[in-house]
Amino acid sequence: MSAVGTPEKISSLQNPRIKQLVKLRDRRPRDEAGVFLVEGYREIRRALEKKIALHELYFSPSWFLGVNEPALLDAAEKAGAQLFELSAEAFAKIAYRERPDGLLAVAPQWQRALTDLALPANPFLLVVEAIEKPGNLGTILRSADAAGCDAVIVCDPVTDIFNPNVVRASTGVLFSVPLVVSASPTVHAWLTAQGVRTIATTPAAKEIYSDVNLLGPLAVVMGSEQYGLSEFWLKNADLPVRIPMAGQADSLNVAMATMITLFEARRQRAGPSLPG
Amino acid sequence: MSAVGTPEKISSLQNPRIKQLVKLRDRRPRDEAGVFLVEGYREIRRALEKKIALHELYFSPSWFLGVNEPALLDAAEKAGAQLFELSAEAFAKIAYRERPDGLLAVAPQWQRALTDLALPANPFLLVVEAIEKPGNLGTILRSADAAGCDAVIVCDPVTDIFNPNVVRASTGVLFSVPLVVSASPTVHAWLTAQGVRTIATTPAAKEIYSDVNLLGPLAVVMGSEQYGLSEFWLKNADLPVRIPMAGQADSLNVAMATMITLFEARRQRAGPSLPG
Repeated sequence: MSAVGTPEKISSLQNPRIKQLVKLRDRRPRDEAGVFLVEGYREIRRALEKKIALHELYFSPSWFLGVNEPALLDAAEKAGAQLFELSAEAFAKIAYRERPDGLLAVAPQWQRALTDLALPANPFLLVVEAIEKPGNLGTILRSADAAGCDAVIVCDPVTDIFNPNVVRASTGVLFSVPLVVSASPTVHAWLTAQGVRTIATTPAAKEIYSDVNLLGPLAVVMGSEQYGLSEFWLKNADLPVRIPMAGQADSLNVAMATMITLFEARRQRAGPSLPG
Repeated sequence: MSAVGTPEKISSLQNPRIKQLVKLRDRRPRDEAGVFLVEGYREIRRALEKKIALHELYFSPSWFLGVNEPALLDAAEKAGAQLFELSAEAFAKIAYRERPDGLLAVAPQWQRALTDLALPANPFLLVVEAIEKPGNLGTILRSADAAGCDAVIVCDPVTDIFNPNVVRASTGVLFSVPLVVSASPTVHAWLTAQGVRTIATTPAAKEIYSDVNLLGPLAVVMGSEQYGLSEFWLKNADLPVRIPMAGQADSLNVAMATMITLFEARRQRAGPSLPG
C-alpha cells in the first residue's frame, strides 16, 4: 500500500461515519445525502473504470480476499476518494454482504434525463416498468449490458436504482449501462418522437417473441414481477409478444424473460456473422 | 380445515422432530434419512401434483399468507402425509426461508439412473457439470423446464440436488424435470450410444451458439461457475460454442448462459410457428 497515504483509522462502532454508513442502506438517508453504497472489489473497480468520483472508500485488510486490493485503494485515492481503514469489527458492521471482502465505497448519485441519452443511429433499448425486487433489477442490468443495450429506462420505479442490492446484483454494471428513471407516458412519448418501436412482453400476446422482426430502432418493454405490464404499456406499445413456455406456467421470472427477449433481439440484430 | 384430522401439535423447540428438521438442512443427515425438505406453498403443491409421497407436512397457520393452505393440507393428508401443527415460534425455528409461509414438508429422496430416462425420438437434454451454488442449479432447472428439456443430467455434483436452496430456487420444478446424477464419462458414453450430439458452451469456442444447428438429438453441456467446463467435456463434446457478449466480460453467469443457449435451441427446434 505504498502509494496510499495514511488513512484515518476507525475502530469504534459508535463512530458517526459507521452509523451514517449503516443508515445509507435506507433510501431516505441516501437521497438526502445524494450518495449510495458500493460494496465489493469488482463493483468498486468498475465504478473507478467508469470515472465515478467516489467520495470515500472504507477498507479493512483482515477481510481482503485477494491480492489486488492495495492497487485498488491506490487508484481510488488518486481519483480523489478519501480512505478510511476500519477494524475487522467495524467493517463487519458496515458490510451488507453475507461474505464481505473488506471494501465499501460511498459514491455520488446521479440524475440522467432522457434528453441526456446520446442514442446511436439504430438504438436498442430496454424499458422496465415498476420492478419490485432490487435483485431482479440488478440482474436485468447485467442482461442489458451483455446483450448490448444502448440504455436502460426504468419507468415508475418501485425499487430505488441506488439500492445496495441493485448495485450488488448488477455486479457494478450499474456504472456501465446508461440508466434513466422516468414516467411511462414521458418515456413513451420520447420513444415515439425518436422513432423507436416498442415491443411489450406479455403472456396474453398472440405473436411469439422470436417470430417477429426485432431489427431497427427498438425498445423491449418489460412489466413488474407481480402485475406484468400496466394498462398503459399494453395499450400503447407497438407490438405485444410472448415467450412460449414448455413447463410450469410461472417457470420464468421477469429477469429470465428479459434476458431471453434481449438475446433474441441481439441475435437478429447481429446477423449470422457476429464478431466476438 | 374440515377434512383434516387432528394433527399432532408441537410448540416446544426441544421437540426431537424440530431438532431433526433443522438437521436436515445439512447433507449428511438428509442422506442418512433418505429425505429432504420442501418449504413453501408452491413447492409443496408441485410435489403433490407430481405424486411425490410426502412423509410429513409441518404447518403453522399464523404464518399462512393465503387462503388455499387448508386445501393443500387436506390434499397432503389424503396422499398419505402425516400432519403436524406448529406454534409460530416452532415454525420460525424450522423455516429456512427469509419469509416463511407456514408450510414445510419432508419428502423422500429418489435415485434415478440414466437408463431410467425414457427419451423421446428427438431428445433435448441439458447436462450441467459441477455446479457449485444451489441457487444457480435451481434457476437452471427452471430454465430447462421452461425451454422444454426432456431431462437434466447433473455430472459430478458439487452441490446436492436435494439442498433446500435448490428446491427453493427451482420453485419446485425439481419435481417436474427428470433429473439424473452421474459421472461425466458415463454420461458422455451414454449420450454417444443414444446418438445425442453434445454442444459445449465455452468462451474459447469459435462458433457462436446461434449460428450452429441445434436440431436433432441434442445435449447442451454447461460447466461450473468458477472453472467452466472440465478438460473432459472440452475434449469430448461434439461442438464448442460461445455466447458473444457486448459489455463486461463476466456479465453473464452460468444460469444466464444456460437459459440463453436453451432458448435458442428451443427456438430452432420449434420452428417459426410454435404453438403456445
